[in-house]
Amino acid sequence: MDTKVSSATKEVIIGEGKPTVIIGERINPTGRKKMLESLKIGDLEIVKTEAVNQVQAGADILDVHVGGFNIDEVKLLPEAIKLVSQTVTVPLCIDTTNAEALAAALKVYQGKALINSVSGEEHSLLRVLPLVKEYNAAVIGLLQDDDGIPPTVEKRVEIAHKIAKRAAAAGISMDNLVIDCLALAVGANPKSALIILETIRRVKKEIGCNITLAASNFSFGMPSREMLSGAFIAMVIEAGATCLITDAAKYRSAILSADLVVGRDQRARRFLQAFRQIPKPQ
Amino acid sequence: MDTKVSSATKEVIIGEGKPTVIIGERINPTGRKKMLESLKIGDLEIVKTEAVNQVQAGADILDVHVGGFNIDEVKLLPEAIKLVSQTVTVPLCIDTTNAEALAAALKVYQGKALINSVSGEEHSLLRVLPLVKEYNAAVIGLLQDDDGIPPTVEKRVEIAHKIAKRAAAAGISMDNLVIDCLALAVGANPKSALIILETIRRVKKEIGCNITLAASNFSFGMPSREMLSGAFIAMVIEAGATCLITDAAKYRSAILSADLVVGRDQRARRFLQAFRQIPKPQ
Repeated sequence: MDTKVSSATKEVIIGEGKPTVIIGERINPTGRKKMLESLKIGDLEIVKTEAVNQVQAGADILDVHVGGFNIDEVKLLPEAIKLVSQTVTVPLCIDTTNAEALAAALKVYQGKALINSVSGEEHSLLRVLPLVKEYNAAVIGLLQDDDGIPPTVEKRVEIAHKIAKRAAAAGISMDNLVIDCLALAVGANPKSALIILETIRRVKKEIGCNITLAASNFSFGMPSREMLSGAFIAMVIEAGATCLITDAAKYRSAILSADLVVGRDQRARRFLQAFRQIPKPQ
Repeated sequence: MDTKVSSATKEVIIGEGKPTVIIGERINPTGRKKMLESLKIGDLEIVKTEAVNQVQAGADILDVHVGGFNIDEVKLLPEAIKLVSQTVTVPLCIDTTNAEALAAALKVYQGKALINSVSGEEHSLLRVLPLVKEYNAAVIGLLQDDDGIPPTVEKRVEIAHKIAKRAAAAGISMDNLVIDCLALAVGANPKSALIILETIRRVKKEIGCNITLAASNFSFGMPSREMLSGAFIAMVIEAGATCLITDAAKYRSAILSADLVVGRDQRARRFLQAFRQIPKPQ
């Protein structure tokens, strides 16, 4: 099943067997003081810089999140969406928990957006799904509900079915739904990956829609994060993730490697393009 | 199912859920001119050096292969086995296609050896299995037969069953069999990993014995080999490989990462021990 998203000039297709789509995650003030301070005073220069950097590093889509304490997201999100759209040509992923800001951003966005996200929570389903339908967007469904993030595979898959059913009832086709299987830090739960991998396999089999993860979260708090998340990325791609929300500059090489291993890189074209010039580390 | 191998003083257990056992592969003259020249004149100094280096790099077992054109393996292999046993304390994996050399090596080996390998070829089954039984050794079963290395999962699994049956008939218990699912280079066959991963999962399910791979082969001829093989290693460990024949110096970090991801590293002890002191690459 192919999920198509687009900017005014570019279409990106997320789908099984295709190269894993990288959704650049760096436009997000969470845990980043400098960006947060800039956003508070409405200064979007840093957003512009990150947009350029992530696209140069190989991001296929850019996640744009400008929410935070003391930020007027309803005003700032559409501004950021407009600015990023003028700066780079890739499609955008509009990332907000504020439905009003989402509506305002969708209004100014040129193309078919990816929305990050709807969850299994009632208030989210009720507010976000109509906007997805209205703007013929695609949407990321987060596997949590009014009880929080479930610790079991069973309950996560149940929420995936709930979101899929509610999306269908709202007139949204399954190819416009991308399920985020929720990557929690291995430092917090050593079984984190096992739960995620089984959830991915079941969602793929039972729903068949595209699957994403915020892949960087997994190694939070650990040393050698790139190596550790690299191993995780290889496994989730093999299990069936078709797009990843991550830092393109840090994880594109792991993603290209995994894609080649599982046959998502025809004639190793992308891998060789990226690496054949680099002298082998001795 | 646990496969136990030992030296005179040390036991290593290969088994599901346990840390992936690293079988150091560097004592092997294939494609290494200098080592080949040394071995031809019976000079084992380089073997000693590699043994020390691999164990320092984290190898749990050492593969010892001294065969090559113009080398008297029947004489040299037992000498090498004795020398390596005196140099390091880890158990050894006796690697030869020469049954006479194998018998001579087993005669001098102190402990329970791992033998590399028996294949599905008649001459191999007939000569190697009685030695495995006689010396109560463990043996690696290679998924190829008199028709060569099969291109399909079906045929590979069939050979695995054949080896398992013949081993059982020879009085060898299943915990003394480790199946090598045969890692071919992705450069030669883009579907290589997909075939291997499915073979691993089927052998694990249908036979339940331990599973190994010569993991370095996979990236042969490609740039950025460590990164590419790293992705491959993550996937095969997740699929069920419990030991890997590889260069400990190059691939231990990928193996430790994958082990942590899939919960084979209690409290992240091994991972943190290896990496927490190293400053994060910026």
